[in-house]
Amino acid sequence: MMDEDKKFMHLALELAKRGEGWVNPNPMVGAVIVKDGEVIGVGWHRKFGEKHAEINAIEDAKDRGHDTRGATLYVTLEPCSHWGKQPPCADRIIAEGFKRVVVAMKDPHSLVAGRGIEKMQRAGIEVDVGILEEEAKKLNEIFIKYITTKIPFVSIKLALTLDGFIATESFSSQWITGDKARQKVQELRRRHMAIMVGAGTILRDNPKLNCRLPECPPKYKVILDRHGLIGEELSGGRRFRLFNDGNVIIFTENPEAFGEVNATIVEETDPERILRKLGEMGIDSVLIEGGRIACQFLSYADKFYIFYGPKLFGRGIKPFECLSVKEANEAPVLEIESIEKLGESLLVTAYPGDCGVQRHY
Amino acid sequence: MMDEDKKFMHLALELAKRGEGWVNPNPMVGAVIVKDGEVIGVGWHRKFGEKHAEINAIEDAKDRGHDTRGATLYVTLEPCSHWGKQPPCADRIIAEGFKRVVVAMKDPHSLVAGRGIEKMQRAGIEVDVGILEEEAKKLNEIFIKYITTKIPFVSIKLALTLDGFIATESFSSQWITGDKARQKVQELRRRHMAIMVGAGTILRDNPKLNCRLPECPPKYKVILDRHGLIGEELSGGRRFRLFNDGNVIIFTENPEAFGEVNATIVEETDPERILRKLGEMGIDSVLIEGGRIACQFLSYADKFYIFYGPKLFGRGIKPFECLSVKEANEAPVLEIESIEKLGESLLVTAYPGDCGVQRHY
Repeated sequence: MMDEDKKFMHLALELAKRGEGWVNPNPMVGAVIVKDGEVIGVGWHRKFGEKHAEINAIEDAKDRGHDTRGATLYVTLEPCSHWGKQPPCADRIIAEGFKRVVVAMKDPHSLVAGRGIEKMQRAGIEVDVGILEEEAKKLNEIFIKYITTKIPFVSIKLALTLDGFIATESFSSQWITGDKARQKVQELRRRHMAIMVGAGTILRDNPKLNCRLPECPPKYKVILDRHGLIGEELSGGRRFRLFNDGNVIIFTENPEAFGEVNATIVEETDPERILRKLGEMGIDSVLIEGGRIACQFLSYADKFYIFYGPKLFGRGIKPFECLSVKEANEAPVLEIESIEKLGESLLVTAYPGDCGVQRHY
Repeated sequence: MMDEDKKFMHLALELAKRGEGWVNPNPMVGAVIVKDGEVIGVGWHRKFGEKHAEINAIEDAKDRGHDTRGATLYVTLEPCSHWGKQPPCADRIIAEGFKRVVVAMKDPHSLVAGRGIEKMQRAGIEVDVGILEEEAKKLNEIFIKYITTKIPFVSIKLALTLDGFIATESFSSQWITGDKARQKVQELRRRHMAIMVGAGTILRDNPKLNCRLPECPPKYKVILDRHGLIGEELSGGRRFRLFNDGNVIIFTENPEAFGEVNATIVEETDPERILRKLGEMGIDSVLIEGGRIACQFLSYADKFYIFYGPKLFGRGIKPFECLSVKEANEAPVLEIESIEKLGESLLVTAYPGDCGVQRHY
């Protein structure tokens, strides 16, 4: 039974991932309906504001001519019990006559956690909770952080040489990593609602900061431009490619520098208040891609994606120069989750360690 | 037939590895004797100056009461056809009446390559060459480099933070990596005949520089001490732990600083001439463990072992500061062979890239 449960929940998790980038700030959710050992319907939450995974799975089963009475529903997140943009899924599950519901993880909202489960149990449905819970929590780490703190999940992405430089002393950095690593960055951009860089990166590289995968929603592009340098360049007639698509949000101490620019201008440069502001705007996740600004957000980082290209620079620009560690045993510690070879480059994925980076959240 | 051949050659390669550290500057060699599909004898070259793998395998078969006539011999390196410290193995193989000999790789000596094979073929033995050749060449990369150039195989080992520092600005570095990574360093020491560091490392850390694995021969400890600082400290009464075992070789511009010290003192500090000198001394491999001296030997490096501990220092001592790369596309390129998680740390193993580090050999 457990192996069967895991198999179907694994499928539900795979389905959930199809919503990546489209459902934020909602969670990714997948659902699988099984009757007599056979999958009779599948669904996932496809897009923010649209139907939930459970409903899509029920409709899929019906479209295929199946009766859901007596079936088992596998769902990666506790079905909702309240009216949001959609009616409560728990009510629909009860109405459809399911015999059993298997849930990977409870709703992370402490106020509502367990309510959907209770509702179904009271209706006589057998409910099992916690199948592939760790995987489900990992899948929705962005949602969980945001929904419980209202602060976006902060990922820091860096591309370093093997000896740890983001650029040469003359700021040359194209290209430290190869095609496969850059393709992976596009996947990271899909996962996050916002991409953040500093003004220096914009002025130097004029990046598009978009997501170039075939299926990718437009991005929020967040620029930290303390002195309003981009505004001054715009006034001088210069054009920047980041304005071509998506929504631009500029944090600055000098809002006057930005005239009629097609962007949201916010007079704020404190990292924590920037993050709170982005949270208020409904942005659940920020991928920080800038080199030097990463250090300012280090103590707010929830995850690190460190790419290493197979080069040596010897000297150059370091990513975390704002740190000043005197003794090795006082250094921030990360916890490496995985290592991956991407063509000739590497990707190290890490979280802040328990006794590591001083955490603000 | 090919799968069988690979299976037995794989066993022979595994046996060969048992000689690691003990046979240098000879190659590691393993041999397996198969008759009627069964392994009837195995052997490996155990120690420099002692019997070759083929002979050990033949004796093993005989000890176990088998007759080698009509059998197949798998050997990871072409059997020798000349008198060295041991009589020619090819002659013995012929005398023992083997029907077939499978060889992973030819002798890398261009002068003798193929002679052992020819000798056996002329005696009517069926000889197949090239089974698991790449694996055999990798296994003996140290031997191949040394025997063909008389220059030791140079490995550079570094322990870096994730942001690329070997120490904080105050030279604190204990510990960047964890237990498993340090255990791996012991294995690297076993593989190499010599360990090299700069005087700064000795004066600061007073390391033993020995191999602390249960089965590990004594090491040559090579110190680059340009100004004779260690000699001066010794005269002042200070004791260094590296003198406790193994053989110490000190390269310096100031040989007078070293009085009655129990070490070989060589008046030489040019990297290339240091390596030639070590080659003349019969040393086939050097593991450079120093931080800053690694950069001086960068263009002579054959292999890189870069350990990353899960820390961030922000600022500190960088490993290759002697490099001065201006443009990213002019940087030395490495070719990453493998990545490995060792406890909380990582090990990246790399070779100089084809269009990468300026090579002197």
